[in-house]
Amino acid sequence: MGRVTDRRPVVRFDGDAASRRPDTLSVEEPLELRVNGSPLAVTMRTPGDDVDLAHGFLLTEGVITEAGDVLLAKHCTDTNLNVLEIQLRPDLPPPVTDPTRHFYTSSSCGTCGKASIDAVRVTSAFPVDTDPMTIRPSIVYGFPDALRERQKAFARTGGLHAAGLFTADGELVCVREDVGRHNAVDKVLGWAVRSSLVPLRGHILMVSGRASFELTQKAALAGVPMLAAVSAPSTLAVDLATELGLTLVGFLRGETMNVYAGAHRICG
Amino acid sequence: MGRVTDRRPVVRFDGDAASRRPDTLSVEEPLELRVNGSPLAVTMRTPGDDVDLAHGFLLTEGVITEAGDVLLAKHCTDTNLNVLEIQLRPDLPPPVTDPTRHFYTSSSCGTCGKASIDAVRVTSAFPVDTDPMTIRPSIVYGFPDALRERQKAFARTGGLHAAGLFTADGELVCVREDVGRHNAVDKVLGWAVRSSLVPLRGHILMVSGRASFELTQKAALAGVPMLAAVSAPSTLAVDLATELGLTLVGFLRGETMNVYAGAHRICG
Repeated sequence: MGRVTDRRPVVRFDGDAASRRPDTLSVEEPLELRVNGSPLAVTMRTPGDDVDLAHGFLLTEGVITEAGDVLLAKHCTDTNLNVLEIQLRPDLPPPVTDPTRHFYTSSSCGTCGKASIDAVRVTSAFPVDTDPMTIRPSIVYGFPDALRERQKAFARTGGLHAAGLFTADGELVCVREDVGRHNAVDKVLGWAVRSSLVPLRGHILMVSGRASFELTQKAALAGVPMLAAVSAPSTLAVDLATELGLTLVGFLRGETMNVYAGAHRICG
Repeated sequence: MGRVTDRRPVVRFDGDAASRRPDTLSVEEPLELRVNGSPLAVTMRTPGDDVDLAHGFLLTEGVITEAGDVLLAKHCTDTNLNVLEIQLRPDLPPPVTDPTRHFYTSSSCGTCGKASIDAVRVTSAFPVDTDPMTIRPSIVYGFPDALRERQKAFARTGGLHAAGLFTADGELVCVREDVGRHNAVDKVLGWAVRSSLVPLRGHILMVSGRASFELTQKAALAGVPMLAAVSAPSTLAVDLATELGLTLVGFLRGETMNVYAGAHRICG
């Protein structure tokens, strides 16, 4: 396993006074994903849980839907942990490596707006609007503290995003940290797909930062009916959640929260 | 111009009590960049300053080095603002559209680690290690407040990243906000290249969040000798800054800061 934190010398300034000391930082390194022998993507991530990360990435890009879709996922060599080789089931369509994704097949100038949205949209195999899960506000209010207690590296570095997966009873079943927030989510969802928990009916995905379109889409691709964020969502995150019937919570702080979509799932 | 903020209905929970009200959110929409007629990338951004964003993106991907390299940059139509068409000077090499970038030309399993780093490295036309700029700590301490005062949308939404460009005298010459931190930086650096200020000798780039490898590299590609962040840098950001001779400041809060590289530029 790679190291999650590492030390670097730092010159600490307090006013005009400078002193030298070591500082603990979050490790960031590139991970190259090779699928069926071809490079697919390079992501800047915190080393560790790379096999989960790869599964989550492929799940939320619409390439796989279950653990059995991946025949093999291993680091290139024992000494080099920054390349991960993946073999997919031979009957799966290979992933799209086009940087603008579905663009080429859907674009025409007359429908530019739709085309550019289509370019970033991935269709989920798992509808979430029919998930009957409900949850009490008091349980939701407990998520941020539960996540923070399990964030091991953040306390040391202040530099990591966290993602956590909860049940509707408030049980925290998986936590992952990463310099990239999408990576933290991919690691959690990849762990879930490898644990045969996908689609994640009756679960809640919690993120330490903001809720973007991309994170909302990742939740939907894993069949999670609810996404909760400590900070603000974007307009497009709200619009996507509304369209898909996914419950979206933002500004989850103390005993307060904003529910931007799917509020019927939050009930006393 | 697109709207930077927009309103959505929200159910606000305070304890178990729920009430309905509108909430102001940061707008997130896809922007497709088309270069010389071909789609290059789709980025999720806050609308506005799209021409700056495109210039900054092309500058920090190593495609252009000055405003004259871009012959034309305009939205596809007056009504659709999510596609930007760019014409480059005909003698410029076209941008690499490979999702793993320089990977194909540099990879071999025996040097996996180096190959995966090479895949994300872009060489700058502007060395920063020879920039003689120095700056007093008291001026650096003023950056966060100056940036925050000029962040118009954050106060309303709590959901935007900011980037600012300062002179060594502490003058704030450009501020941009975006749902994506790399976009906020691209908008600032794109404004600078269009203003013929690149290479940005004697300037400081300030970001509201963390300092990643990617943001450090963007600073280097614009010839900025110093990057300052409110939060933590990653190990790879520190290593790149050290290698390039770029001053990297993190945890810039109140009258304190950590200098992770190039501390010789900070002097009383």
